[in-house]
Amino acid sequence: MTRAILTLNAGSSSLKLGLFDESLAPLATAHVDRLGAPEASLKLTDAEGRKLPSEGFSADDFATHTLALRSALSAFRADLPGLEITGIGHRIVHGGIQHAEPEPVTEVLMDHLERLTPFAPLHQPHNLAGVRAAIEAFPGVANIACFDTAFHRGHPFVEDTYALPRSYYEKGVRRYGFHGLSYAYIDGVLAAEEPELRAGRVVVAHLGSGASICAIRNGQSIACTMGFSTLSGLPMGTRAGELDAGVVLYLMDQEKMDAAEITELLFKRSGLWGMSGVSNDMRTLVASKEPHAREAIDYFCHRVSREIASLGAAMGGLDALIFCGGVGENSALVREDVCATLGWAGVEIDSEANAAHAREISTGRVAVRVIPTNEEIVIARAAKSALKM
Amino acid sequence: MTRAILTLNAGSSSLKLGLFDESLAPLATAHVDRLGAPEASLKLTDAEGRKLPSEGFSADDFATHTLALRSALSAFRADLPGLEITGIGHRIVHGGIQHAEPEPVTEVLMDHLERLTPFAPLHQPHNLAGVRAAIEAFPGVANIACFDTAFHRGHPFVEDTYALPRSYYEKGVRRYGFHGLSYAYIDGVLAAEEPELRAGRVVVAHLGSGASICAIRNGQSIACTMGFSTLSGLPMGTRAGELDAGVVLYLMDQEKMDAAEITELLFKRSGLWGMSGVSNDMRTLVASKEPHAREAIDYFCHRVSREIASLGAAMGGLDALIFCGGVGENSALVREDVCATLGWAGVEIDSEANAAHAREISTGRVAVRVIPTNEEIVIARAAKSALKM
Repeated sequence: MTRAILTLNAGSSSLKLGLFDESLAPLATAHVDRLGAPEASLKLTDAEGRKLPSEGFSADDFATHTLALRSALSAFRADLPGLEITGIGHRIVHGGIQHAEPEPVTEVLMDHLERLTPFAPLHQPHNLAGVRAAIEAFPGVANIACFDTAFHRGHPFVEDTYALPRSYYEKGVRRYGFHGLSYAYIDGVLAAEEPELRAGRVVVAHLGSGASICAIRNGQSIACTMGFSTLSGLPMGTRAGELDAGVVLYLMDQEKMDAAEITELLFKRSGLWGMSGVSNDMRTLVASKEPHAREAIDYFCHRVSREIASLGAAMGGLDALIFCGGVGENSALVREDVCATLGWAGVEIDSEANAAHAREISTGRVAVRVIPTNEEIVIARAAKSALKM
Repeated sequence: MTRAILTLNAGSSSLKLGLFDESLAPLATAHVDRLGAPEASLKLTDAEGRKLPSEGFSADDFATHTLALRSALSAFRADLPGLEITGIGHRIVHGGIQHAEPEPVTEVLMDHLERLTPFAPLHQPHNLAGVRAAIEAFPGVANIACFDTAFHRGHPFVEDTYALPRSYYEKGVRRYGFHGLSYAYIDGVLAAEEPELRAGRVVVAHLGSGASICAIRNGQSIACTMGFSTLSGLPMGTRAGELDAGVVLYLMDQEKMDAAEITELLFKRSGLWGMSGVSNDMRTLVASKEPHAREAIDYFCHRVSREIASLGAAMGGLDALIFCGGVGENSALVREDVCATLGWAGVEIDSEANAAHAREISTGRVAVRVIPTNEEIVIARAAKSALKM
C-alpha cells in the first residue's frame, strides 16, 4: 500500500496533480489539459519526470473536474497499486484579506472563498471546483486550501491600497499580491540556507508564463508587482502587465469593447504573445529571428529591471535578488539583460556563472541567486502538517 | 501702446491667460474659473501677482471660451491701454507622435489635432476651443501650438509601447508622456546653469495637482510616469495614478459602471482627495489632523520614491533629482519623505536647506535641486520665436 499526499491545482481548462509520499518525496504528477474539450489529454510522469503510460481514456473521461480527477487517479493507481490518499492540498488563487496561512477546508471556508470570486473571476471558481471534486472523490480525507495571496498579508498600508475613495479599500479593492506559494518556498530556502540574506532586503523575481516580483524584508512580504488581480506589474506570456487605466477607458469609450472583450485582450492576447506575434514562450522568442520577438524580450527585461529598482525603493534598498520560475531559472539572457541596467544599485553578475545557471551568480554588493522554486511542495507540506503526522 | 504676447491655456471650465511684453517680461495674468456656469469668475493679477480690479462682468460674459477670452482681454485693456497682441501661444495637451516641437496653427494642424481627441477626450476639445476663440478674436495674429507631449518624442521603444498586440501601438496606443512644457523649462535651466548635470541622468519630479516624473538623459526624455493618458503614474489631487487594469475590469463587470462613470471616479474622485476624504490640496492635508490625510501623504510620497527609483533603472542610474511644481517647490515635508527611502540610491538631503526651500539641498552623490518651473514662459518663448522678432 502507498500512502500519499495529493496536491491539486485546478484551472479553467486544466488540472494539475502532484503525488507525494508521507516523507514528502515526489511520487508522480499528472496534467490534464484542455479539460472539457474534445481534445482533452492526460500526461503522467514519474518522480524523475519520465513519462508514464496513460492510455485508454476518452475526452468524456475529462469532461469535468470531478471526472478528470477520477481519471487521473485511476491512471496513478495503475502505476502505484494500493494507493491511498491521506491528505489533499489545494492551490487557491484568492484567500482575501483574512487568510495569511493555509486553512483546512470547511463549509464556512468554502462559502467565504466563493464570495471572493468577483475579485478573481477567471481562477477562483475553477480552484473551488477542484476542491469540490476532491471532497466528492475522497470522502473523509482532509483538504487543505493554500492561497496565492496568503504570503502577502501584512503589507504596509501604502502597499495595500490604491488611490481610490476609501470605500473601495473597505470593500476589498486592495493590492492582494499573488504567487505567494512560490515566494514562501524561496523564503524557506533562504531561511534554511542563507539566514543572513533573509534578514535583509530581498527581491524575488518569479518569472514564468505568469510573472511577478516581490519585496521581502526579514521574511515578511512588503510589496508585490501583482496587486488586485493577476494582470498588473510585469508583462507575461499573454498578459499585458502594467497598463495605463486610460487605455482601458479608451477601449471602452472609443472601441466600444465590453468587459469580456477587454478581459480577453488583456489576459489572453497581450504580453509577449501580443507584442511579438510569435509566441508566449520565452524560449521560442529567444530562438526567433523576428525583430518583434526581440522587442518583446527587451520590453520584458526592461520592465523587470524597473520593477526591481522600484521594489528596492519600497524597502529602502536591496541586499539580495533571487531569480526563480521557468524563465528566471532557465534564461541566462533574461537574467543578464535585467541585471545590466542595475549596476548602479549594486547588482553585478558573472557572465559564466550566469550562463551555467549557477546558484550564486553575483560579483557585486547585492547577492544574486538562481533558485528553482517549488510551489507544489509548499502545498504538500501544508497538507502534511495539517494531518499532524 | 503695449505690444504683447498672449499665452492661453483653455480647459473644460477654465481659461488661463498670460501676458508678456516682447522681451518676455510678464505683464499680467487672468484666470477665468467655472467657465460656462452661473458662478463663473475672473481673477486678474499684475506682473508681481497682485490682484487687479476686474469688476463689471456677469456670468454671461464667460459663457463660452470666445466670450471669456474677449472679457479677459477687455479687463487687461483697462489696465494696459493700447494693448496690442502680436502673437499667441497655446498649451495643447496632445500633439500625437508627429509633433516634437511647437507648431504654427494652420487648418491642417487643427484638423490633425482634432483627430487626436479620442486619446485625450477630457482636454483636447477644450484646448482647441481656446485656439479657435483666439483666431476669432485676433484675426491675422499668429497662433502657436505648444504640446505637453512634444518633449517626450524619441523615447526608446520599450518606453513608448505597452505589452498589447502590435496593432494597438500602430493605431496610437502609446506612452505619450505629458507635462512636457514643464520638463522643457527645467531642462533649459539646467542647460544654462548646470550643463554638467544636464549631461547626466536626470529625474525631474513635477509634483502639482497633476503630477508626473520624467527621466531625462542629456536633454532627451527617456521615460515618463504618465503614458497614454494623464491618469497613470503618480497619485494626484483627484486622479488615481497607477492602477491595476483588473480594478477597471472589476468596476465594469461587478459594479456595472460605464466609461463615463469610471472616468469620473478615476479622474475626479480619486487621488489625494479620494484617499483622504479631506482635500485634494497637499497644504490642507499637511495641516490636517485626520489620519486619512496623513495616509494620503504617505501614499503619495511612497509612490514618488518608487517611481524615481524605477526611472533611475530606465537610465541605468541617477545623477540628479529635480523637484518642481506646486508641491515639489513648496512642500519640504514631501521632499523629505520622498528622499528618506532613496539613500541607497545616493539621494541624501540637508534638512535645513530643504526646510528653507533652497535650490541645492543635496549632501549625497545625487545632486538634488528645487527649481520653480514655468510652463507659460516656454509657451511665450515659442510664440516669440515664431514671430521672428
